[in-house]
This record gives sequence, structure tokens and C-alpha cells, in this order.
Amino acid sequence: MLSAAAPELSSPGGKIYHGGDLVSARILFPAAPEPWLDLSTGINPEAYPVGSLASSAWSRLPAPADREVLERTAAAAYGVTLPATIVAAPGTQALLQLLPRLILARRVAILGFTYQEHAACWRAAGASVRVVTDIEDLCAGDVDAAVVVNPNNPDGRIVAAADLLGVARSLSARGGTLIVDEAFMDVVRPSASLVPSLPGSGVIVLRSFGKTYGLAGLRLGFAVAGSDLAGHLRAMMGPWAVSGPAISVGARALADQDWLHGTIARLEAATARLDELVTAAGLEVLGGTSLFRLTSSPRAAGWFARLGRAGILVRPFPAQPGWLRFGIPGSDEAAWARLSHALAAGA
Amino acid sequence: MLSAAAPELSSPGGKIYHGGDLVSARILFPAAPEPWLDLSTGINPEAYPVGSLASSAWSRLPAPADREVLERTAAAAYGVTLPATIVAAPGTQALLQLLPRLILARRVAILGFTYQEHAACWRAAGASVRVVTDIEDLCAGDVDAAVVVNPNNPDGRIVAAADLLGVARSLSARGGTLIVDEAFMDVVRPSASLVPSLPGSGVIVLRSFGKTYGLAGLRLGFAVAGSDLAGHLRAMMGPWAVSGPAISVGARALADQDWLHGTIARLEAATARLDELVTAAGLEVLGGTSLFRLTSSPRAAGWFARLGRAGILVRPFPAQPGWLRFGIPGSDEAAWARLSHALAAGA
Repeated sequence: MLSAAAPELSSPGGKIYHGGDLVSARILFPAAPEPWLDLSTGINPEAYPVGSLASSAWSRLPAPADREVLERTAAAAYGVTLPATIVAAPGTQALLQLLPRLILARRVAILGFTYQEHAACWRAAGASVRVVTDIEDLCAGDVDAAVVVNPNNPDGRIVAAADLLGVARSLSARGGTLIVDEAFMDVVRPSASLVPSLPGSGVIVLRSFGKTYGLAGLRLGFAVAGSDLAGHLRAMMGPWAVSGPAISVGARALADQDWLHGTIARLEAATARLDELVTAAGLEVLGGTSLFRLTSSPRAAGWFARLGRAGILVRPFPAQPGWLRFGIPGSDEAAWARLSHALAAGA
Repeated sequence: MLSAAAPELSSPGGKIYHGGDLVSARILFPAAPEPWLDLSTGINPEAYPVGSLASSAWSRLPAPADREVLERTAAAAYGVTLPATIVAAPGTQALLQLLPRLILARRVAILGFTYQEHAACWRAAGASVRVVTDIEDLCAGDVDAAVVVNPNNPDGRIVAAADLLGVARSLSARGGTLIVDEAFMDVVRPSASLVPSLPGSGVIVLRSFGKTYGLAGLRLGFAVAGSDLAGHLRAMMGPWAVSGPAISVGARALADQDWLHGTIARLEAATARLDELVTAAGLEVLGGTSLFRLTSSPRAAGWFARLGRAGILVRPFPAQPGWLRFGIPGSDEAAWARLSHALAAGA
């Protein structure tokens, strides 16, 4: 239980550290058994079955009509109602990269501690970014865009729709915009989504496809906003922004409510099981969603190293050295046994 | 042989008309036999075999190390030498959308008549765009970016690398940039590519993957430029811009030189066969590449309609009503027979 391995993996040269980096993990823990059990992300380990795709999904330029089918299906799945509209994108990150050009805000407040790409994208675009911990402070001063990740990553905090709409009204009155990143809403509490009550302007909601459906490699996400903002966003991405496979698999998966409901139930059960394991090992569960659990321990760095040597990658936080985030193991009992063994041995 | 059908299909409301729009074609020609033979694009009809992908290509966030393998493979395939470097992107169109932010030019000259998305993207970004027909005029006046599609779409015109480097030097001397879109270079004359002689600044070359490899739905393209421009471009796209399937299939395909050489030979033979057919029907071949042929006829609108009624979609040009562009039929002899029949009946 030695090692300050965690700081080595995280943030070399100020780069944002993301989960899922098995290449770095193998360098840090060269003797770890393969295959790695990657619990460093918030991606569903039981992916929606891709099946076999029509050859045209690969070979042809994605047709506008097919993209419209995907967007209509997503609109129904997320509960989009007029005056809002939905725009498909090649992943939520692609939307984060575009937001500073779409919204042109200069002073941005972010409800933190949260997913760091929001701050990074705004700062890269030259905006001044303030991370606040109280929702009241989101519209303080001369802020012209506010960001709330809801439910929050990594702690799972949920802000009520009524509170978000209050922030949106306050910002909107002076031409500002509220951005709500609902990347993990599907599996947590869909009823808390802002999408069904979205006003026609002043708010943009982001939804992720890859996390819930376990298909992060596909690159698919959505923005829901009033038609002006949605139209600008669509024009900025240009034709064919979303791939044929993403359109095809996305439209099929988002129409499959049975799969989603079964998945939510499975993930909730797995989450309870994971909480029990880590708690028994002496880690405190601070919160999370059904796709990741945030834990705290004074021995977090030691746990990171012990799990790493056992070939289990969890997510450290350079700015919060007492935290570790655990992804949810899938249905593979051998994975649960490995985790259980590693946790029991270190407790 | 009636019908002014072509103008109906093209450019409603000033939107750019692209090939491949079978939805509109079916509306225009409701009685046409299915399936349509789509000769309206410049996409290889014989796609590189996708095969089955590792599940991780779908499920995991694309790893930086995998994207680097793709980029090294592409660099070798395209002949990238230092000081240039290569950046993978989700399709060439995604690069076109980003160029005005990357290069920040305000006065852009485009060697025309050519692919219209270049002008559209620059105009959407507020640049003033001049389409010139003589390469000498590319650096005339106060132009700060010039665009050459090489070989050109639709006429196949090739500008020699030495001439392009002359333009680049002239622009570069006043801080300007030359953009060379080599979307169709693979199958035409790889030796004419500017990539191997790219200077460290002042030029950016775009390469398309989907056209040559018949996988336009995959969304994969590349930019080759000096490391400064390449670095900025990479930062603008953010992490995970290229999908897992695109990385996986792209790396495999770009390493497969045997497939490429066989494809080039097959496409050249098919091109000769197509030229013979259209010439016999009285259409004049103006030029093109091995992925499309540009033809001219005073009866072009009639040909478009006759072929459309036979379920064969070719590419009209609103601004050039005497032109039709034919894609190359694949190895399916029934497709050749349909085309041959429709052309012979109208001659």
C-alpha cells in the first residue's frame, strides 16, 4: 500500500486527465494482470448491441432524411416539446468545443467541482471562467453564460428544474445563456431533465448517447435548444457531421425503451452492490450516479495503486487527492470477484 | 426526353446541392425502378471491407494511442515528411467548417469552378470570397487565403506541385495561407500530391478517406500542415473527434496498399468503359477523375430526366446547365447494363 502513483497518471503538463487511459495505466503498473478491468469511466459496461449495419450506413454520405429520423427518435426519447428542437452531433465533446463560438459569452460561471472540459473549452476560447459552488452565484456579477452538469459528475448532485429555470430567467433577462449538461440524466432520474420544460431561448441542454448505451466510440450526442440556437449549431457543424453508423445505431437504440428500462434496473442493482463492496473496504461513498460512484478515503492514493497493481483502473482526481471514482462493473462475475478480492485484501 | 427536372432537384432556396440525395430523386421520379443506381457522387462503389470490429471500437472512448496509430499509418500512406504533420478529423467537411476559424482569413480566393462547400464555409464565416479561374489570380490583390481543389471536382484539372508551391510562397510572404483539397488525389495521380513537399508553414492539405475507400458514412479525413497549424486544429477538435470505428477501419485500410493498387486499376478500367458508353450516346467527356466523369451536352437536362426515369441518378450543376457528372458503376454487370440501356435508348 505504498506509492504516490495517482499523481503520476493525472494531469501531466496541465492536460486534463480523463478516465479510460489504459495505455498510461499499463505503463504505471507494468506487472498488472491482463485484461485490465477499467472502472475509470462513467460508461455503461453492458453496451447496446450494435448488430450488423446496412452497408449503406458505411458507404453512403449520411442522408439528411436519416439524420432527421434519428433526431425525431431522440426528441421522443428525451421528451423534447416545442419551442425546443434537437440537433444531433458527433458526441457531446464536439458540442462543448462549439459552444464558445455559438454563445459568444466572455464571462462564464460553472457550478463545480465538475467535469473539467467545460472550463477548458471556454478558457481555450478566451473566456474568463469562474467555478462557483453555490447555484445562487451562477448569475452573480456580469456572467453571460452559466454551466451546470446535472446530475453532476463526479458527485451526482441534482439541481431541480425549477431552480435551473430561475437561473435561466435571470441570465436571459440580460442576454445570457444557461448550459445544462445532462450527460448522465438517462440512468439517474429522467424526470429531473430540463428538456420537457425548455424555454424557446436562453437555455441549451446537452444529452450524451455513448455513456448510457455503452457506445462511447460511436460519437453521438445531442443539443436541445430553441430553434435559433439549434439552427446556428446545425450550420456550424455542416452537413454529414454525424456518421452513418451513429445515425443507424442511435435511431435503433433510442427507440428501444425496453432495453433502457432493463438497463436502468441492472445498473441500479450493480450500483448497490458496488457501494456495499467499497463501504466494507472502508471507502466512504460521497455520491454519484448509476454509472459511477464517488468515494472518499484518506488512503485514496494507496487504494489507486493497490487496485492498479491488481489490474483495476479507477479514476483519481488531481485536485481532490482523497477522492476516487469507481465505474460500475458489468455482468461478468469474474470482474466482480477481482474487485472484491482487491478491495478485501486492502481493507 | 422532356422535363426540366434538373433545376428542381438542384439548389432549392440557395442551399448547395450535393450528390447522393436519393430521397429527392424518388420524389422527382416516383415511377423510377428500384433500387436506384446512384451515380451522383464521387464515392468508390466498391467499398473497402469493413469486416467485424473489436467491440472496444464501439464501446470505449477512442484512445489517443489508437488515433496516433491511425495518423502514423495515414502519414505513411500519403507520404508526409517533416516538417509537416497530420491530423485525423471526422471527415473533410468537418475540416472545411473549421478552416475559417483556424486561418482567420478575410479575403479568400478559390480556383473555380469547383466544389462549392469551400466558398460556402468561408462566406458563412464572414469572409469575402472571390472565385478565380486562373491560378495567377489566386494571390492577386490582398487575398489572405487561397483554395485549390486538386485534382479539381468536377473537371479533374490538376495543378502541378511546383505551381502550388509558388502560390504558397507568394501568399506566405504576406502571412497568407494556401489550402489544397486533395480529396480525389489517391485514385488519380498520387505523385501529384503536395504532401511530400509540404513546407512547415503557409500551406494546409486536406485528404479524404471516404471517397477512395467507399466509406463516406464513416466520416474520416485528414489535414496535413506544419506543426503550429496542426496543433491548433487538433485543439479545436478536442479529444475523441474521430470515432472508434473510423480509427479502426481507417488504420486497417490505409495500411492495405494492395487493395489500393487493385482499386486504382479497377477504377481506371471502369472509367474507360464509362467514357466509351457516354461518348457513344453523344455526351462529350470534359474530364474528371477515376471516381467521376464530367460530361457536356446541349441536352443535359433531358439526359438527367431520362436517366432519372430509369432509376439512375447523375449529378446536375445548377450553374452549368450543360454539364452532368457521372459516378463510376461498380462491378455489378446489371448496373452497367441498365446504364448502357438507358444511354443507348436516348442517343
